Amino acid sequence: MNDKPRELEPWQWPEPHWRKLVNQVRAGRSYRPNKWKGGARCAVALSFDSDHETNELREGGKSIGRMAWGEYGARVCVPRILTLLQKYGVHATFFVPAVAALLHPEEQIRVIAEGHEIGMHSWIHELNSVLPYEAERDIMLRSRDTLEKLTKVHPVGMRTASWDFSPHTLRIEKEMQLLYDSSLMADEDCYELLMDGEPTGVVELPVEWVRDDAVYFMMHRFQSLRPYTPPPDVFDIFRREFDAAYEAGGIFQLTMHPHISGYRSRIWILEEIIRHAQSKKDVWFATHREVVEYAKANAA
Amino acid sequence: MNDKPRELEPWQWPEPHWRKLVNQVRAGRSYRPNKWKGGARCAVALSFDSDHETNELREGGKSIGRMAWGEYGARVCVPRILTLLQKYGVHATFFVPAVAALLHPEEQIRVIAEGHEIGMHSWIHELNSVLPYEAERDIMLRSRDTLEKLTKVHPVGMRTASWDFSPHTLRIEKEMQLLYDSSLMADEDCYELLMDGEPTGVVELPVEWVRDDAVYFMMHRFQSLRPYTPPPDVFDIFRREFDAAYEAGGIFQLTMHPHISGYRSRIWILEEIIRHAQSKKDVWFATHREVVEYAKANAA
Amino acid sequence: MNDKPRELEPWQWPEPHWRKLVNQVRAGRSYRPNKWKGGARCAVALSFDSDHETNELREGGKSIGRMAWGEYGARVCVPRILTLLQKYGVHATFFVPAVAALLHPEEQIRVIAEGHEIGMHSWIHELNSVLPYEAERDIMLRSRDTLEKLTKVHPVGMRTASWDFSPHTLRIEKEMQLLYDSSLMADEDCYELLMDGEPTGVVELPVEWVRDDAVYFMMHRFQSLRPYTPPPDVFDIFRREFDAAYEAGGIFQLTMHPHISGYRSRIWILEEIIRHAQSKKDVWFATHREVVEYAKANAA
Amino acid sequence: MNDKPRELEPWQWPEPHWRKLVNQVRAGRSYRPNKWKGGARCAVALSFDSDHETNELREGGKSIGRMAWGEYGARVCVPRILTLLQKYGVHATFFVPAVAALLHPEEQIRVIAEGHEIGMHSWIHELNSVLPYEAERDIMLRSRDTLEKLTKVHPVGMRTASWDFSPHTLRIEKEMQLLYDSSLMADEDCYELLMDGEPTGVVELPVEWVRDDAVYFMMHRFQSLRPYTPPPDVFDIFRREFDAAYEAGGIFQLTMHPHISGYRSRIWILEEIIRHAQSKKDVWFATHREVVEYAKANAA
Repeated sequence: MNDKPRELEPWQWPEPHWRKLVNQVRAGRSYRPNKWKGGARCAVALSFDSDHETNELREGGKSIGRMAWGEYGARVCVPRILTLLQKYGVHATFFVPAVAALLHPEEQIRVIAEGHEIGMHSWIHELNSVLPYEAERDIMLRSRDTLEKLTKVHPVGMRTASWDFSPHTLRIEKEMQLLYDSSLMADEDCYELLMDGEPTGVVELPVEWVRDDAVYFMMHRFQSLRPYTPPPDVFDIFRREFDAAYEAGGIFQLTMHPHISGYRSRIWILEEIIRHAQSKKDVWFATHREVVEYAKANAA
Repeated sequence: MNDKPRELEPWQWPEPHWRKLVNQVRAGRSYRPNKWKGGARCAVALSFDSDHETNELREGGKSIGRMAWGEYGARVCVPRILTLLQKYGVHATFFVPAVAALLHPEEQIRVIAEGHEIGMHSWIHELNSVLPYEAERDIMLRSRDTLEKLTKVHPVGMRTASWDFSPHTLRIEKEMQLLYDSSLMADEDCYELLMDGEPTGVVELPVEWVRDDAVYFMMHRFQSLRPYTPPPDVFDIFRREFDAAYEAGGIFQLTMHPHISGYRSRIWILEEIIRHAQSKKDVWFATHREVVEYAKANAA
Repeated sequence: MNDKPRELEPWQWPEPHWRKLVNQVRAGRSYRPNKWKGGARCAVALSFDSDHETNELREGGKSIGRMAWGEYGARVCVPRILTLLQKYGVHATFFVPAVAALLHPEEQIRVIAEGHEIGMHSWIHELNSVLPYEAERDIMLRSRDTLEKLTKVHPVGMRTASWDFSPHTLRIEKEMQLLYDSSLMADEDCYELLMDGEPTGVVELPVEWVRDDAVYFMMHRFQSLRPYTPPPDVFDIFRREFDAAYEAGGIFQLTMHPHISGYRSRIWILEEIIRHAQSKKDVWFATHREVVEYAKANAA
Repeated sequence: MNDKPRELEPWQWPEPHWRKLVNQVRAGRSYRPNKWKGGARCAVALSFDSDHETNELREGGKSIGRMAWGEYGARVCVPRILTLLQKYGVHATFFVPAVAALLHPEEQIRVIAEGHEIGMHSWIHELNSVLPYEAERDIMLRSRDTLEKLTKVHPVGMRTASWDFSPHTLRIEKEMQLLYDSSLMADEDCYELLMDGEPTGVVELPVEWVRDDAVYFMMHRFQSLRPYTPPPDVFDIFRREFDAAYEAGGIFQLTMHPHISGYRSRIWILEEIIRHAQSKKDVWFATHREVVEYAKANAA
């Protein structure tokens, strides 16, 4: 970006510079169907980021306590969540770092066997924004291949770790011809991602912090993050998001983490959300892939 | 300030130094009418800071995720808010950084066309307190001119970004003959701002953190800020602020942000506050400009 | 402390070192009367730390916004609180930094005139723990003299700013023959402070973070502190503290700040606490000085 | 670990390196009985970390205020908790840093005399992860000997301070032939700890942040930690954890701190949890040692 001399402060930037920054990744056409599959009024896209031990490995892997927390996600929470999803006949998407998949291959095989989708979610939960382009590309290709080798299914979607996007992420997603990304938040409906103003063919299924369990519940002993929000209030936020999505005929997308929502005192949130949504008769539960494919094919 | 040698700690300062610091910007005469327009008992001054992408640009513009969040504010939330205001026949004030206005000119034109006010809100959401005087002055003039050029309306009020005031901000506001500022909080009623003890003619329409949605709901992945407060409790705080303002015959001023209050799970707060206030028959909804003009002209 | 070579970590300290650290300031004999004045079962000791502009001055006085916040405390909140206390016939203690008193002398005169106590609260809200001994002593003497000169009343108690105690604070309090300190928290009843194991004659009227409004409500834009706790929950905590103090026949001590609890949406907490306590017939509202004098004279 | 050159980032690590890191400490076989002692359906394992002054000493011992807070834990809270436990006939486990025990020897004697267990909890609340191996080993041995000398009971379990585990902690626990550790969280049932893939004979009785009072209630004036979560919501979380543990026939383990849960406004949480659990007829309250011994001997 040679139009921005290093020493300029943002308030000194020439207009082309900030326009260029803003324009790197942008929301293009909206993919919003009038009705969802089978005439449903609302689509519910549940997702689980199975980070397990990679949350700690990403930071250096020095905390044995946090590694035990990650193991808990695999040992206790994913089975608990799968059992719950099966009880209600619901399919969801699991985004899995390649290293987490390699540490827990049986888990991924079970996830696929029970009809869920597995999407890419980085190599070892690294942040994309600190990677050189070559490394980021290499990691994305290896992550995809690792998941495919383990599950025999070709991943078509990706969620960046911590929803962290580099200036190259979208270019690589486009080169890989991914069907969708699920890391950005410029809309509540699916939309096509633009790169430097040009359509990429990659669809965004937008996430949002308000619909992410970690926002309210993250605990990090040596940082200031604490699970201060009472669980019933988190349920209430998710329920309001669903109710309004239903009212609008849109998508209710939720990001949960096994090691965060899998606790005995929190797993009821997921169950009650499913029950609440299923109490409406015209709600379509689907994987992220299914939602994107349907939205893209049936956009109004 | 040559009466303060650099090496002194605050507890070592000579009295003239701390008096001078305190005296830079001060509350002068109160502008409090006995009744509001049309005999109303209470004035409601809603405001929305349409920061959009500038929140991230101000910090360097490196996070594509946060830029998508800003785009969400423009793409989804401002239209949602405008529709809501129109439904209830309410006019409000939008404070818009010049760069946000340049990125979303149609939005500003619609805001004005629907009867709302647009006030100044920095160039690119920069903090005033880190700017040299010349830069701050230049930015304020350019911001005003940019808004005026886009909207064909001359802005008469300003809210500093992050309510951050430099030692020069008030002097420049005075030089620009602004009608009002809305960044300070020394009272609940309008008051005249004093500079080094002298009246400036600039009226303050006071803000407050307790009446700012970002306080309770801000999310920053790489800082410790999380939306820990449950939305119904935020509504309850706003409602109590209104009820007591109504009781006192004063102003209920509220600061919201499209990208914070525009979510499906939060927009109801704004709607319920409007409905609650409208359930009283003698409440006057007005733009910040109208409130200030009325208060100044009718001070008891 | 020459028994502690600089380079040792706490887990390497010899036993005399950590014993010496712990022993610097310690709780001695308890001052707990069987009944309170007039046969009351429970004493209620309300206090207000009138920091006003010194909160910001202490940190360098650069934020004009935070200085306006401090002005709000003096301009709006102290009068509101005084009116409320008068309505219920309740006396309280105001702890005032000398600089805040010099900035607002009329306020202190009114506080005294309405029957309340004023206690020392630092010079400019500086932390004691960073002061050299001579400076700390000088500041404490000057603070006392400043308050006395303004109010014509000799202060007998002190609360350190931020409850921050230096290794010298207690020694100076003893030298000044203060009746009491109210900055520590080793008990729920009054107790005598020990210095290096020896009685000092200074009584502690203990404070507690759970009974401090700033804990739940502090807002600092450029730090991570936010008023995340809903006001009704803060009331509930205070109420539980009172109920149990009443049950135990002890003291209900509360620390509030005009610029924190004086808001329209929070002042009801103070009113409801007073009403709740007054609904019991045998509760004695008193200043800190009165509580300490009574406890000392009537300890069981 | 010579397979990891210093300069590699986690995303560059060779697979053997991250596998080795993950494998240091791992969950092995589960110890889950079909029924608990006396046919009980659920085991309740309450624990209290009696850190007292060591919380502050660990950080350098400079804050006299925080030391007073620690003294409060010993002077007021432990007696209050012991009285409560006795009222309901419940035995619990107290984890005590050696320095806290040396500062309060009578307390430990009373704890043992009333039928509770005392477990190791570091020397002076130091973090294990910053200790050299020799120092960590020496400290653990001295801590055990100190507790044994004071209480005449041989400690068989340990909880690391801040649940902080070094790469050597488990090895030392194994060498000391400890019956159990209670610092990790890979499961909800007891399990055997593996070290580099090998069984150690040490049983883990898992803790969890969601069942730790400090998570919701910690206050640190000069950090960002505040007790933002309302006490009734903390009770609700604990209650949900118990209810689901009861439903599952598992363990309800709770970590509390005298200086955190002992307040008048919080102690009811402990009482109500005990009453709630006792309202079921088939619940076994036991010390951590008893739970581990039973689980190990009766694993299904």
